[in-house]
Amino acid sequence: MRAIVKPGPEPGLEVRDVPSPDLPQDAVRIRVRRAGICGTDLHIYHWDRWSQGRIHPPLVLGHEFMGEVVERGPLVGNVEVGDRVSAEGHIVCGHCELCRTGNGHVCRETSIIGVDRDGAFAEEVVMPATNLIPIPDAIADEHAAVFDPLGNAFHTVLHDDVAGKTVAVVGCGPIGLFAVGVARAAGAARVIAVEPAADRLEIAERMGADDLVDPGADDPVEAVREATGGYGADVVCEMSGSPAGIRSALRMCRNAGSVRLLGLPKDAVEVDLAGDVIFKGLHVYGVVGRRMYRTWIQMRNFLAAGLLDIDPVLTHRLPMERFEEGIRAMESGEAAKVVLEIP
Amino acid sequence: MRAIVKPGPEPGLEVRDVPSPDLPQDAVRIRVRRAGICGTDLHIYHWDRWSQGRIHPPLVLGHEFMGEVVERGPLVGNVEVGDRVSAEGHIVCGHCELCRTGNGHVCRETSIIGVDRDGAFAEEVVMPATNLIPIPDAIADEHAAVFDPLGNAFHTVLHDDVAGKTVAVVGCGPIGLFAVGVARAAGAARVIAVEPAADRLEIAERMGADDLVDPGADDPVEAVREATGGYGADVVCEMSGSPAGIRSALRMCRNAGSVRLLGLPKDAVEVDLAGDVIFKGLHVYGVVGRRMYRTWIQMRNFLAAGLLDIDPVLTHRLPMERFEEGIRAMESGEAAKVVLEIP
Amino acid sequence: MRAIVKPGPEPGLEVRDVPSPDLPQDAVRIRVRRAGICGTDLHIYHWDRWSQGRIHPPLVLGHEFMGEVVERGPLVGNVEVGDRVSAEGHIVCGHCELCRTGNGHVCRETSIIGVDRDGAFAEEVVMPATNLIPIPDAIADEHAAVFDPLGNAFHTVLHDDVAGKTVAVVGCGPIGLFAVGVARAAGAARVIAVEPAADRLEIAERMGADDLVDPGADDPVEAVREATGGYGADVVCEMSGSPAGIRSALRMCRNAGSVRLLGLPKDAVEVDLAGDVIFKGLHVYGVVGRRMYRTWIQMRNFLAAGLLDIDPVLTHRLPMERFEEGIRAMESGEAAKVVLEIP
Amino acid sequence: MRAIVKPGPEPGLEVRDVPSPDLPQDAVRIRVRRAGICGTDLHIYHWDRWSQGRIHPPLVLGHEFMGEVVERGPLVGNVEVGDRVSAEGHIVCGHCELCRTGNGHVCRETSIIGVDRDGAFAEEVVMPATNLIPIPDAIADEHAAVFDPLGNAFHTVLHDDVAGKTVAVVGCGPIGLFAVGVARAAGAARVIAVEPAADRLEIAERMGADDLVDPGADDPVEAVREATGGYGADVVCEMSGSPAGIRSALRMCRNAGSVRLLGLPKDAVEVDLAGDVIFKGLHVYGVVGRRMYRTWIQMRNFLAAGLLDIDPVLTHRLPMERFEEGIRAMESGEAAKVVLEIP
Repeated sequence: MRAIVKPGPEPGLEVRDVPSPDLPQDAVRIRVRRAGICGTDLHIYHWDRWSQGRIHPPLVLGHEFMGEVVERGPLVGNVEVGDRVSAEGHIVCGHCELCRTGNGHVCRETSIIGVDRDGAFAEEVVMPATNLIPIPDAIADEHAAVFDPLGNAFHTVLHDDVAGKTVAVVGCGPIGLFAVGVARAAGAARVIAVEPAADRLEIAERMGADDLVDPGADDPVEAVREATGGYGADVVCEMSGSPAGIRSALRMCRNAGSVRLLGLPKDAVEVDLAGDVIFKGLHVYGVVGRRMYRTWIQMRNFLAAGLLDIDPVLTHRLPMERFEEGIRAMESGEAAKVVLEIP
Repeated sequence: MRAIVKPGPEPGLEVRDVPSPDLPQDAVRIRVRRAGICGTDLHIYHWDRWSQGRIHPPLVLGHEFMGEVVERGPLVGNVEVGDRVSAEGHIVCGHCELCRTGNGHVCRETSIIGVDRDGAFAEEVVMPATNLIPIPDAIADEHAAVFDPLGNAFHTVLHDDVAGKTVAVVGCGPIGLFAVGVARAAGAARVIAVEPAADRLEIAERMGADDLVDPGADDPVEAVREATGGYGADVVCEMSGSPAGIRSALRMCRNAGSVRLLGLPKDAVEVDLAGDVIFKGLHVYGVVGRRMYRTWIQMRNFLAAGLLDIDPVLTHRLPMERFEEGIRAMESGEAAKVVLEIP
Repeated sequence: MRAIVKPGPEPGLEVRDVPSPDLPQDAVRIRVRRAGICGTDLHIYHWDRWSQGRIHPPLVLGHEFMGEVVERGPLVGNVEVGDRVSAEGHIVCGHCELCRTGNGHVCRETSIIGVDRDGAFAEEVVMPATNLIPIPDAIADEHAAVFDPLGNAFHTVLHDDVAGKTVAVVGCGPIGLFAVGVARAAGAARVIAVEPAADRLEIAERMGADDLVDPGADDPVEAVREATGGYGADVVCEMSGSPAGIRSALRMCRNAGSVRLLGLPKDAVEVDLAGDVIFKGLHVYGVVGRRMYRTWIQMRNFLAAGLLDIDPVLTHRLPMERFEEGIRAMESGEAAKVVLEIP
Repeated sequence: MRAIVKPGPEPGLEVRDVPSPDLPQDAVRIRVRRAGICGTDLHIYHWDRWSQGRIHPPLVLGHEFMGEVVERGPLVGNVEVGDRVSAEGHIVCGHCELCRTGNGHVCRETSIIGVDRDGAFAEEVVMPATNLIPIPDAIADEHAAVFDPLGNAFHTVLHDDVAGKTVAVVGCGPIGLFAVGVARAAGAARVIAVEPAADRLEIAERMGADDLVDPGADDPVEAVREATGGYGADVVCEMSGSPAGIRSALRMCRNAGSVRLLGLPKDAVEVDLAGDVIFKGLHVYGVVGRRMYRTWIQMRNFLAAGLLDIDPVLTHRLPMERFEEGIRAMESGEAAKVVLEIP
């Protein structure tokens, strides 16, 4: 089968033929139809320091995808051949105390498809049946293909109730843009998007942001205070990963409010914990992956009910063979989310 | 001043002149502009058994209202003369353990305006400053006037998160109709209204209900099961108070789901606790009043942000002097919510 | 192997030889050492109406047990041969929305060992590996054997925080007695046991109850009010299943308090929902089974740390062959919990 | 009356005569009996940078105290002359959105006694009636005198359920020592104290710590991992305020666990947010003050029920006039908590 592969320990990726994977008894084989390119894929493409420490080539990339079940192992009971599915790409142990108490998203034995094992930028991928989520007809293929990053946004925004609240989103990459839409759909009273790139702010507006703040032009902490009668935002979703973004996220949050950190800073960050966290009585939550499987069911319900349209974020569709165009568009900032069509 | 008064221990109400109330040091005098008629007012009008045990005439009726602050006591710091306000009509002790831990809505020393002390169907009402909620310009007078019953709906629906969930509302009186709108605005994926009266169902549809179920024509438990792939509704708001409504509410809720009881049954109700509550692992919550003051702030935020339009529920506007027309319209089922204009 | 069997559709049980069960690939074979007799086993013994509708003989009884893993299927990775284990006796589907969101205890496809399939009153039992909980050395065999009913008590008491609170337990069968101990160990400030049988109250005292109330002698609602400055108990655990017990449980709970219903009434119960639930703003929770697997981990931690000694509840130990003595002791009220030793 | 006073903008304190304070209508006059010296008082004594920016001499110090009500204003209804009381020293506005939604502990208009207004190191102090907590007879004067710092510990430990969990306390000053006792009393399965001073560790043991870790001798992160089967602690209470303590607190917490930050670092702290917060899915909570008034009621219930003995922390009792001995004992590390007797 055709797949996008990291052939060896050096920059670059290539589309080549690889053997179709074996099928364990408790797994299904999926004919992939659509897949999303993630920032992680760019790191692996460039073979950066993180990749060098984590990735063992040759490896099929890709962890955001959807497709159709074409074969199932003998122990699988919850899906049928022909089902349209997306899947959680974090394969967890299932029996540690974290997995057994609803915290599988931070299982210490997690293996991620497209990172720690072969992924979904391929004609076929094999997944444990536990990881599948069936997709209702009302949800388009390309929307189901990005359930992984969309799930990051749902996990972040719905960590705790946002109905009637003011939600600030700091950093409008694809997940930040999704977060704007989720907050709007979940009943936020006011959604404030903070992002330096004008075209991203424009997408944020289409996703439902009430206020657009360019931190190069306006102090975002002041902007949020003005918008909230001086209190600050009830909820802040930090999606930039930049030290300045993180510090402003803590400062723009109201006392006793909730800051959810998803963006990953490269290095340690200096934080005024006394002034910006402790004296404010903040709740800070580290967001990784998606709650298994609460987030998936929420996401499916929102999209199937039409509460949220993620189309504005999907700026590029490309056949798999032209993946490098997608990478270039992401790097230039021209693209938000790029969806690959697997032929 | 003119007021709607229960003159003595017998059926009937009349508009008459009464003295303006005294102003305690920690209270404000409000010039009332709009007030809503509640089912409770009808009980008092008819002097039913409950009224006979609770009401001590002469009494000025009315607990749903808004107006303008015209005078404040010397200890009041949080409002200004000229402020538009609505107010919580439950006056609580403020120092018992319930009041001190966020449960003032069930303070055992509660005194309700228009029931236990003079109320707001009058040109002026005096309220403790703690009970006021300032009303932003974006919220119309007649909407602010019904914050009391609207708050019942907010309290019920937002008792716990409804985003992405299926919410059933059993009984579409004014509070049930408000609840449909709140659930829709708070991101419910599907809202199912159960109500025998066709014109109420029509209002429910305008408030955002996806499914309209007439329990005289269709089994509402079956209807909800069909709408939910057999699981049942995630959240059920019981607003009818009828034994049949309550039993169906428990049955239409999914396992481990949440049933919120607001409608007041007249007598004890036979409930299959083993089959309908315990084996299902249900969460049942008794809803009284509004959370003080979380509910008020949520309500103000939703309405100021335009997330929710309650106009379809306000079917009648009448000058105070014509209150009996309003009572008749409510009793005939013609009216949902009647708003009085205080001249 | 030897087992306690329901041979046919009529009263009685017998110890006989049955074949050892087959071992699925994802399951383990356990050499049973200790098992507890449950009230459910008595229903099946007597072949009551419920049993006639649910049980399909021949059936090996028993769902409370512990033992040692003696064989594991090829797909099992989380336990080793030789491990001491107890196990959740509810075998659930694992892939419905309830199972996938932490509500497996109310999975609609639940199959219970000793009820819907062969159980643990036998030399060997086969269990899905997912259902096992390893038992640390610090926990005695006979304590691990009753993790099923002890887990009911933990699920009930730890449904929500009890630290510093007043907890009333209505009905002191084995689960009620366990609940007294769990509440005490979890930091309840005051534990009130309500139970008519004097010897049960005595065990309740040994489990840590501060107040012992015989509802035949004193009004338990009044007793709780007196003990709580008039407020009522913060948390009430209803373990009796009797209509009078349930009504008193609702009445003895303070406003905005939490009533947890575990005892199963035989028939529908008349409840004053307006006065005892709605106007009080109560939270009522139906308790079934154990949270999978939060409850198991809590229970293991409490017992391994020595926070709770359940010995006073284990009144009888008998070899499996003498199970009828245990049944008689339970029926006479002489026994609280009877533990069988499997030879 | 006699009082400990900061006379002017320079180091030092003195006991002198000052006029007794006026009594507002909604306040009470309290004859102070016992008061605790806090680290904050030492900062003011030394006139450090923080004090220079915050304190306006002359000022009566002291915010930890208990006493007897000797006079009440005409609007006070919830206490009687003669009542023994302690009091929340944070005087808040009562009408902002934070105060109205249970977050008065982070009200932006907070005025603290002994810091922003005259305090309780005096024969008499005047407090708003809302701030009082009556003290049952079962609680000793000197225990009631330290409800302020004890409340910090209760707020920290009971932020969320600790029953059956492993709780690590980093830093064993008085509040850390209290936290050890609270965790033990609230049903923690294992309590790990981390502290370099040997005599503090000894007090921690008397307060109920299972494990004593000297970070100068052992790596506390490793020690906690070993104690928890590699997972890390469920809950970490950071009471040291040191950058090393804070970083170790984040690292010793298990994935998806809860870190509560109370110790105040002097400067910004470098934190590996990606590795130590985000990828771990941590919940971090900034603790300031006490929840008003949930914490006070919990604290009163625990102490009145005898669940917790705080005596080991109260190392020194001194008459008010000898306060400087107390300050010296605190600075030498000899004292944990010093209680002053007001003559």
